[in-house]
Amino acid sequence: MLIIGAGLCGSLLALRLAQKGYKVEIYESRPDLRKVDISAGRSINLALSDRGLKALRLCGMEEKAREICIPMYGRLMHDSQGNTFSSNYSGRENEYINSISRGDLNAILLDEAEKHENVNIHFNSGCKKVDIENKIAHFKSYETGEKFKVKADVIFGTDGAGSSLRKSYISERKFLFSYSQNYINHGYKELEIPADKNGNHQISKEHLHIWPRGDFMLIALPNMDGSFTVTLFLSYDEGEYNFNNLTSEEKMIAFFEKEFPDALVLIPNIKEEFANNPTGPLGTIKCSPWSYQNKTLLMGDSAHAIVPFYGQGMNASFEDVVVFDEILCHFERSREIFDWEAIFKAYQKARKHDTDAIADLAIDNFYEMRDHVANPLFKEKRKIEMDLEKTFPNQYSSKYSLVTFNENIGYNEAMKKGRAQDKALLNLIADDEVHTHLEMTKEELKVILDKVIYETDRILEEDKILS
Amino acid sequence: MLIIGAGLCGSLLALRLAQKGYKVEIYESRPDLRKVDISAGRSINLALSDRGLKALRLCGMEEKAREICIPMYGRLMHDSQGNTFSSNYSGRENEYINSISRGDLNAILLDEAEKHENVNIHFNSGCKKVDIENKIAHFKSYETGEKFKVKADVIFGTDGAGSSLRKSYISERKFLFSYSQNYINHGYKELEIPADKNGNHQISKEHLHIWPRGDFMLIALPNMDGSFTVTLFLSYDEGEYNFNNLTSEEKMIAFFEKEFPDALVLIPNIKEEFANNPTGPLGTIKCSPWSYQNKTLLMGDSAHAIVPFYGQGMNASFEDVVVFDEILCHFERSREIFDWEAIFKAYQKARKHDTDAIADLAIDNFYEMRDHVANPLFKEKRKIEMDLEKTFPNQYSSKYSLVTFNENIGYNEAMKKGRAQDKALLNLIADDEVHTHLEMTKEELKVILDKVIYETDRILEEDKILS
Repeated sequence: MLIIGAGLCGSLLALRLAQKGYKVEIYESRPDLRKVDISAGRSINLALSDRGLKALRLCGMEEKAREICIPMYGRLMHDSQGNTFSSNYSGRENEYINSISRGDLNAILLDEAEKHENVNIHFNSGCKKVDIENKIAHFKSYETGEKFKVKADVIFGTDGAGSSLRKSYISERKFLFSYSQNYINHGYKELEIPADKNGNHQISKEHLHIWPRGDFMLIALPNMDGSFTVTLFLSYDEGEYNFNNLTSEEKMIAFFEKEFPDALVLIPNIKEEFANNPTGPLGTIKCSPWSYQNKTLLMGDSAHAIVPFYGQGMNASFEDVVVFDEILCHFERSREIFDWEAIFKAYQKARKHDTDAIADLAIDNFYEMRDHVANPLFKEKRKIEMDLEKTFPNQYSSKYSLVTFNENIGYNEAMKKGRAQDKALLNLIADDEVHTHLEMTKEELKVILDKVIYETDRILEEDKILS
Repeated sequence: MLIIGAGLCGSLLALRLAQKGYKVEIYESRPDLRKVDISAGRSINLALSDRGLKALRLCGMEEKAREICIPMYGRLMHDSQGNTFSSNYSGRENEYINSISRGDLNAILLDEAEKHENVNIHFNSGCKKVDIENKIAHFKSYETGEKFKVKADVIFGTDGAGSSLRKSYISERKFLFSYSQNYINHGYKELEIPADKNGNHQISKEHLHIWPRGDFMLIALPNMDGSFTVTLFLSYDEGEYNFNNLTSEEKMIAFFEKEFPDALVLIPNIKEEFANNPTGPLGTIKCSPWSYQNKTLLMGDSAHAIVPFYGQGMNASFEDVVVFDEILCHFERSREIFDWEAIFKAYQKARKHDTDAIADLAIDNFYEMRDHVANPLFKEKRKIEMDLEKTFPNQYSSKYSLVTFNENIGYNEAMKKGRAQDKALLNLIADDEVHTHLEMTKEELKVILDKVIYETDRILEEDKILS
């Protein structure tokens, strides 16, 4: 079988299929990232959490991945005076997310996949289009400039948000293809906080740092070498400061001095980086169907690219491999005829409502991170949730926990329950029905827990009737 | 200015702009429908309601349109035994929708537009692409085969769901263009119930007829000549019967005999029509931005095509003209610099949330028409709503009324209020908190009204906190 794209999803998929005995050919447009640095100012670290770890575990890669993880236990918010306050991701100690290098993780997956003799990886081979009817992928070699074709039994497109297989679904017009690309008004640009002269992190490496400013924000995730990758999320054309009008060094520096003074002093090469690093767009891609007959299947970002604000993009793509593996195992074991079309359909049926949900949750979190993290109502909600999780670890999980740390329930279920809980809790606070103080007793918290559970169930019940 | 497409939206827009003194050139790919019959088995009648009528009124065309309208006061449901029951659209007598011929309505709009010497209409001119940067539209003449270009100050794309201007937005890649096309699994096919030998309607012409069957349905709208246009909505590939498997005459007839026996006897040419009339797809198109700088603007279906299940497609496109006219008047009157870019942006800002809402409502109504119209809970809700509208005409309007008969509130507001009301009422019925019987007194209904208003407000209030 042919896999187009040896990024995170493609290399994990290749590894899993190889472990199951399939013969796998992967084609990747870029050079081998283990030999050439190809980051070029793009997102170089990511948040790995329980769904992604579950997928790595399935393929025997959890341990190796953990060796290159930096745990982040919560958010550290920076205000424009440089004051900070922290907010844990969970009231349970074992629930945290991890900063991990995209390149390093990809490299260990490629290394492991290559150990299987039924795997061949071809780099510098850009897929130009796919003849989906005849299962022929058309490539161009970026080494020789030569064009070539590869015919396969089955073709998997794990070629990311700009997927060439997905574009072929649109251009070949063999079936009604529902498709959406929705950009937000913000773009992103990456900058760097280097390590100090001893190679240590200059700010806490146990946090994901956020500088929330309403219309825009800065975040920073730690790297193993002591540096942080900083990302500015800013509108292209709205507000006093935006990417289109931050055209001079003076204006850009004035913007950082006013809004992010404590970050500015930590980014020594900001002028060069701001000018030279690309500004990337942020968007959501959804489509359906993911597959064409028994011939082709989209997985990972090619099927469902999302905005980065829930830290779930890679996790969702890895979880695709888990779900696909379950479906495949089921068909392999059962007496049903082994039929790729049926497998692809069963996979989409099991999976699509969950990838749609994480896409919507990621958009929600964009607003939450920008606007709500500093809002008193949301801060009180967050405090209550931490107390509930700490005091009743088996009885309460916030939406964030359900999405991030509960890999055994789907994103869709996590979204529905999490949103109902949020609504219940915010309304209880707004209606002055729950009160907090510094040292809540277990009895007081139990009263709140019961109210939240009751209200959540009522909201879910009310919603059910219309669906 | 240049308008691409002389369909319903384009011809009304041309008329309105002509009335305001602008010089308008319209290009239409099809021949002049006043001279050539070009219906070819496509949707030939539509539901015209208050939003559309308001737009026609603005252009002085309401009277002429009403002359070719057939009022429909409610739905007449047909079960598979041929039994019928009716359900009015409103408890208020003056609230009804109208069946109108697409071709006849388009013709009177073209006639009226042509009376203005500042309007030129060019038929048989298919737009192939638009150079949006230089405002040059590229056409092909379907009479001579010749290609030609037209340069304009401003270009309006009213060229429908397959808009060539919109495709140029995608292909020219001048800006980040958010775009979605979402097909439902059902297609549609049109059939005909002819007039009887005296030229009269064979079934009630005062109703929109529906044969709801869960997974599929048939509807029929009356025409002025005594015939009905019948539309079958059916899945392409799911269920026992679908478009892909109704391949033989025998199977198709067996399907109609089982499901629509009373309709079958009224469609004498069903075999030819089923075989020869095309099966059309049904989808929703959303996009943003609608405009490019001060150069081009999408309006009508080209900006927001919707599924037909709320009978609002034409009404929404006509309402576009009303909203655009308001914005244009405002800029003409005000001392602000007259700037098409600002006008286009103000128009989208005022309009998009409403066209998004009617798109979602139309999808909702697909499920309601197929599934809910025969559901006891929904029937009881409908009965209560009719009683409330009849008894308290100024205090209650159902979601359907808000959307269809209240042209002075936007679709978005109608959707939010209507959905909250539906949820309130369905929950009150399900929780046994309201009871109906045949002859409700005004006092009994007042109690229900108060409960519904209270619950609706509570639901709207609860939702507000999360947004």
